[in-house]
Amino acid sequence: MTTYQVDGFEFAGIAAGIKKRGGLDLGLIAARGGAKVAGVFTQNLVRAAPVTLCHQRVQAGEARAVLVNSGNANACTGEPGLQAARDTTQVVASALGVDPAQVLPCSTGVIGQLLPTQRIAEHAAALVQALSPEADAFSEAILTTDRFPKVVSTTFDTTLGPARLLGIAKGAGMIHPQLMDGLPQATMLSYLLTDAQAPSEALRRALIAASKHTFDACSVDGDTSTNDTVLLLASGRRGEPRAGALEAALDEVCRELARLMARDGEGAEHSVDITVTGLASDAEARQVATVISTSLLVKTALFGRDPNWGRLLAAAGRAGVPFDPARARIQIGEALVCDQGMATGGDAEARATAVMQAEHYGITVSLGDGPGRFTYTTCDLGHGYVDVNAGYRS
Amino acid sequence: MTTYQVDGFEFAGIAAGIKKRGGLDLGLIAARGGAKVAGVFTQNLVRAAPVTLCHQRVQAGEARAVLVNSGNANACTGEPGLQAARDTTQVVASALGVDPAQVLPCSTGVIGQLLPTQRIAEHAAALVQALSPEADAFSEAILTTDRFPKVVSTTFDTTLGPARLLGIAKGAGMIHPQLMDGLPQATMLSYLLTDAQAPSEALRRALIAASKHTFDACSVDGDTSTNDTVLLLASGRRGEPRAGALEAALDEVCRELARLMARDGEGAEHSVDITVTGLASDAEARQVATVISTSLLVKTALFGRDPNWGRLLAAAGRAGVPFDPARARIQIGEALVCDQGMATGGDAEARATAVMQAEHYGITVSLGDGPGRFTYTTCDLGHGYVDVNAGYRS
Repeated sequence: MTTYQVDGFEFAGIAAGIKKRGGLDLGLIAARGGAKVAGVFTQNLVRAAPVTLCHQRVQAGEARAVLVNSGNANACTGEPGLQAARDTTQVVASALGVDPAQVLPCSTGVIGQLLPTQRIAEHAAALVQALSPEADAFSEAILTTDRFPKVVSTTFDTTLGPARLLGIAKGAGMIHPQLMDGLPQATMLSYLLTDAQAPSEALRRALIAASKHTFDACSVDGDTSTNDTVLLLASGRRGEPRAGALEAALDEVCRELARLMARDGEGAEHSVDITVTGLASDAEARQVATVISTSLLVKTALFGRDPNWGRLLAAAGRAGVPFDPARARIQIGEALVCDQGMATGGDAEARATAVMQAEHYGITVSLGDGPGRFTYTTCDLGHGYVDVNAGYRS
Repeated sequence: MTTYQVDGFEFAGIAAGIKKRGGLDLGLIAARGGAKVAGVFTQNLVRAAPVTLCHQRVQAGEARAVLVNSGNANACTGEPGLQAARDTTQVVASALGVDPAQVLPCSTGVIGQLLPTQRIAEHAAALVQALSPEADAFSEAILTTDRFPKVVSTTFDTTLGPARLLGIAKGAGMIHPQLMDGLPQATMLSYLLTDAQAPSEALRRALIAASKHTFDACSVDGDTSTNDTVLLLASGRRGEPRAGALEAALDEVCRELARLMARDGEGAEHSVDITVTGLASDAEARQVATVISTSLLVKTALFGRDPNWGRLLAAAGRAGVPFDPARARIQIGEALVCDQGMATGGDAEARATAVMQAEHYGITVSLGDGPGRFTYTTCDLGHGYVDVNAGYRS
């Protein structure tokens, strides 16, 4: 893995005995000099304790650390769960020498089991001692069923030269957006770190805008987590972003992280961009793209590399959005497999089958000549998903 | 299989070479003396040609035959598909000596391929010749990925003594209701035949009422078909139903057919009734029960016989219905695995695991003390579903 650094942040990842199968499971991001912060969180009514506490603490707009454990979600754990989130951030805050209110907690793993706070307390000093400018161990410590760490980096212009935006995410299952009143919802743990300078309100606006078309437009299994959290922190070591520069960088990094999560979907072999065009509005196109992207029959056909366009069209037809099926055109890669709502023949399907061998490809479903357009990222669903989820807790 | 008969109806099922793998694939129900009829159909915008034609013809309120083929859905086939539905009902009408407008077409199978009308024409005479009072061959000829035929029978009181209600259904995949404005949607091919006497409008009202809590409350994979059709035919050989008797019989037969379809869900090993209670209204309870029943994480946990109640609660939390997670109680069979939103311990989970070995069992998710209550039938999702659907067309 390439090593990425971003000025003003240190990282650590260690094994604290939280995961049943062992391995790195406790991570820390430290911004000892302080950072402005913004966050978006799951809209699931069942919110894990760390989400509640993290959401509260983010309101202050400043943070000095993010404490993440994998292997245990600390969700459905009631008041003892909240206390566990407070206690573990307290003990790490002491080791770091910062105010506990500036330590943001995140958890991911099994639901309904109490967090082993004692193990985290015992490892707090080692965790702080492990801090370094390199994010490698941290990016591994936050993983659960993920097969690979997800780290993306870019640069953008500020008033004082180039700044970096580093994105680190985990997410492979229980991943699906659920928009409420236009507010985006984070669908994974994702940390976006920049050395640029920006007030927390600007960070919040930029984060919401970017999430809506990236994190909120990807799905592995349609299940929205109790623990989804996206945090954007700015250390302020560089200048203020040039107009639109931070937004563009966020869009790029969040889009790639979302694609990596779909690519790493539990058991998945492909990530697929489903683009719906020709509807009356982007919102309608989004609705249809979401239904297609979460259709089990579509996802199993993607797994089987079967250009079964009838399933794509049937899924579109149940999305509750008006269109004329007789005008439908479906392209898999460049292969036009359906025109005017009907099959185009075996040659196009053979070309589509070839496209569907790729790790990443696109499908375009055109349903009219309206201006509405949206792209949603999904993955195939096969035996690996069943294997991971039929016995996750055992 | 027990042989069922119902006065005024004859049945046939033969092999016409429509299914790639061979076997019975052409079925006929004949009511040569005529029958009153009502139907409910898929609300999918992408409607198969036979659904369009069947819907039109049902409006007359009378029918003399139902022609069903399996192996080809005649969906996404444009005007040639409509012509194929007209042609095949025409040729069978001729063989039967009835008006083609009184022959109702249904198809189920692969989407996007033209119906082999010539094969059906060649077999029309043999199909009519095979008619007999026994439904066994018909109930097999309509199957696709089903592992077993679905036939349910009951009796009810009429003004002239007992009448029979016979239900015959197919359905294992692409099964999911999609209610629109309170109108129920059929989610499979299902034929309900009675020898009682009733006008078509009374049949329609009774069918809609029964479908809403039975067919429309079961799901295999969340995918609504392009071909769903439920027909209720009454030959009138017996008297008029006593008050409420037909409704009760329909409720019983449709509920059992829905449960059989969930039980026969592609690759499924369990059918599970998910009952949600304690919400403000039945509609809210239905919404939550539907989301839980179609959650991939829930369905794979059912497959793994894992009493992972956190997934049930997390699915409820994303349903868009208000409740207090801290009051949630979850029972698997009689085992209380979650109380006040938290785990009750390993003993209850062990008892729940024992319950989850059964072919059929119930789960109750209680989310408050409101009067709202709804039961939805689902099934587990495992490797069999992937096997069936990753290579369905090959």
